[in-house]
Amino acid sequence: MINFESITKSHERIREKIHATPIMTSTLLNQMLGHRIYFKAENFQLTGSFKIRGAMNAIAKLHEQGQLKERVVTYSSGNHGQALAKASSAFNLKTTVYMPEYTSAVKQLSTRSYGAQVVLCKNRQEAERRVAQESEHDTVLIPPFDHDDVIAGQGTIILDDPTVLDCCDAIFAPIGGGGFISGISVSAKALNKKIKIIGAEPVCANDAKRSVQSGKIFRWNDSPDTIADGVKTLSISERTFDYLKTIDQIYEITENEIMYWTQWICHLLKIQCEPTSALSMAAALKWLRSEKKPRSILVMLTGGNIAPDTFQKVWRENYLTLSPGTISIEHSI
Amino acid sequence: MINFESITKSHERIREKIHATPIMTSTLLNQMLGHRIYFKAENFQLTGSFKIRGAMNAIAKLHEQGQLKERVVTYSSGNHGQALAKASSAFNLKTTVYMPEYTSAVKQLSTRSYGAQVVLCKNRQEAERRVAQESEHDTVLIPPFDHDDVIAGQGTIILDDPTVLDCCDAIFAPIGGGGFISGISVSAKALNKKIKIIGAEPVCANDAKRSVQSGKIFRWNDSPDTIADGVKTLSISERTFDYLKTIDQIYEITENEIMYWTQWICHLLKIQCEPTSALSMAAALKWLRSEKKPRSILVMLTGGNIAPDTFQKVWRENYLTLSPGTISIEHSI
Repeated sequence: MINFESITKSHERIREKIHATPIMTSTLLNQMLGHRIYFKAENFQLTGSFKIRGAMNAIAKLHEQGQLKERVVTYSSGNHGQALAKASSAFNLKTTVYMPEYTSAVKQLSTRSYGAQVVLCKNRQEAERRVAQESEHDTVLIPPFDHDDVIAGQGTIILDDPTVLDCCDAIFAPIGGGGFISGISVSAKALNKKIKIIGAEPVCANDAKRSVQSGKIFRWNDSPDTIADGVKTLSISERTFDYLKTIDQIYEITENEIMYWTQWICHLLKIQCEPTSALSMAAALKWLRSEKKPRSILVMLTGGNIAPDTFQKVWRENYLTLSPGTISIEHSI
Repeated sequence: MINFESITKSHERIREKIHATPIMTSTLLNQMLGHRIYFKAENFQLTGSFKIRGAMNAIAKLHEQGQLKERVVTYSSGNHGQALAKASSAFNLKTTVYMPEYTSAVKQLSTRSYGAQVVLCKNRQEAERRVAQESEHDTVLIPPFDHDDVIAGQGTIILDDPTVLDCCDAIFAPIGGGGFISGISVSAKALNKKIKIIGAEPVCANDAKRSVQSGKIFRWNDSPDTIADGVKTLSISERTFDYLKTIDQIYEITENEIMYWTQWICHLLKIQCEPTSALSMAAALKWLRSEKKPRSILVMLTGGNIAPDTFQKVWRENYLTLSPGTISIEHSI
């Protein structure tokens, strides 16, 4: 398992190549909930999501070690593909991203705009299989989460401004493959031993929760059908499972709750926030409701890449007339 | 007419009470267009739009002069109402906002959340009439644009960071009642005599253009039907007409172009930007296409307050597959 030193080294390696993103707050939300919420806005990160941290770290470390090859490959339905394409272009590498056919045209276009070749596959499973078959001697695979340097890179998010942890009781982040929360757990616990690390998954994509409960990795046959397209992974990995066993809690979130918080975060902060980000805040509300005294928390907003059809789905209903302070979201929507 | 000194005084008066908003850029957009675009992001302003500048200035000046009354009234279909409610609450005043019935539930709620009473009227004309009837001795009217201190307040947007004007060839802003671009024209021309001030209106709400062309103020019978709800005003005023006669150009923008640029600005900057903001960029593209050499411009994003049904309309079509650099927007959509 990685340690805090690998994360500080990763931060030194990538900090000039990526953005230190802002922490945002909403006076109105804090008043409504009676707690203090800090939002980490990775929608303003290079390529529009936190994924550039892990991808850039993996590529830059290979470069340092003289182990870069001519071509980089991966599978992704979105943010990791864009991130790897951007990171590779910084080192003049060729990149191929295998994507499921259902990947939105906008995300395909963005990945190509960073210089990558996009190969469409029937589904996520086939994309993973095609990448595994890539065994040319001049090719290196950087997977979305099952990689130490990717996990260490994601953990650098805490080091943009570590002082915020001094006053925080808990951190909330979504779980797809588990790389993001794994990196966060190592860096945050090193800086504040008491801090709670709390994960969030869609109810219909709750493989991490099932895996932790049963002690055995649960794997979907095909990508779960959730609006949070950043967590449509088939399963966590043995590597991320080791970290996931140590986090404090995993909340399961309904699709309506995801859409509810996507609307409210966009409305309050005036940012474009992807549904995967809303998982963090939905879990945060559940946790805050069980707390007896005012808490300060850090809520990870993973990114801001949204396709037009996802916008349509998110804004079909109007959730902005149901205030977070007065409504029991679990039961009212 | 107001002068630069009234704007610098307004800035001193309100700067601690509002936000200095960021200027944002998109490397991708600059590459695609071959020009340098600075976006002024008033979506991050207090109450979600630039309107707080004028409202706060008018109220704070009355306070300075000891002329504040118990109650403040206005008519508004959105941003000015919220702004006035917030500005009044800072001075513990009662506020009543007369709104047309079609005002979205979200904007009504937001206005109430700042402490104002909302009175719904059949349409914009009736809202204006009701306010005009308010003649109690303890009531003061702060209209959305026909007021020197409101215009001077809007002009303070240039003073957040005046150095950006040194390298700018033109500024782009939407025209509703004309208060915003009037304030901008005074402050920007004082700092850079050569800078062009260029306005934008929806084709279907082109009363400022018609007025300037004919030399006589054109007035709609009822609010024009445009997705840019910040510019649904019935007419400019004699006061703003004097400034509008001096600006360099007014472009007329189609509804499709407004939706196109709303999508692209949200996509590139990862912010929530209201359709009225997109008018500025649509006009900017038209102007840039007539320029022979690379230009630097300042594009005013007016705010980020959007109702769910507006989101639905904006994202019904997918404009993100039509790149701004390669497509002639006027003809392709």
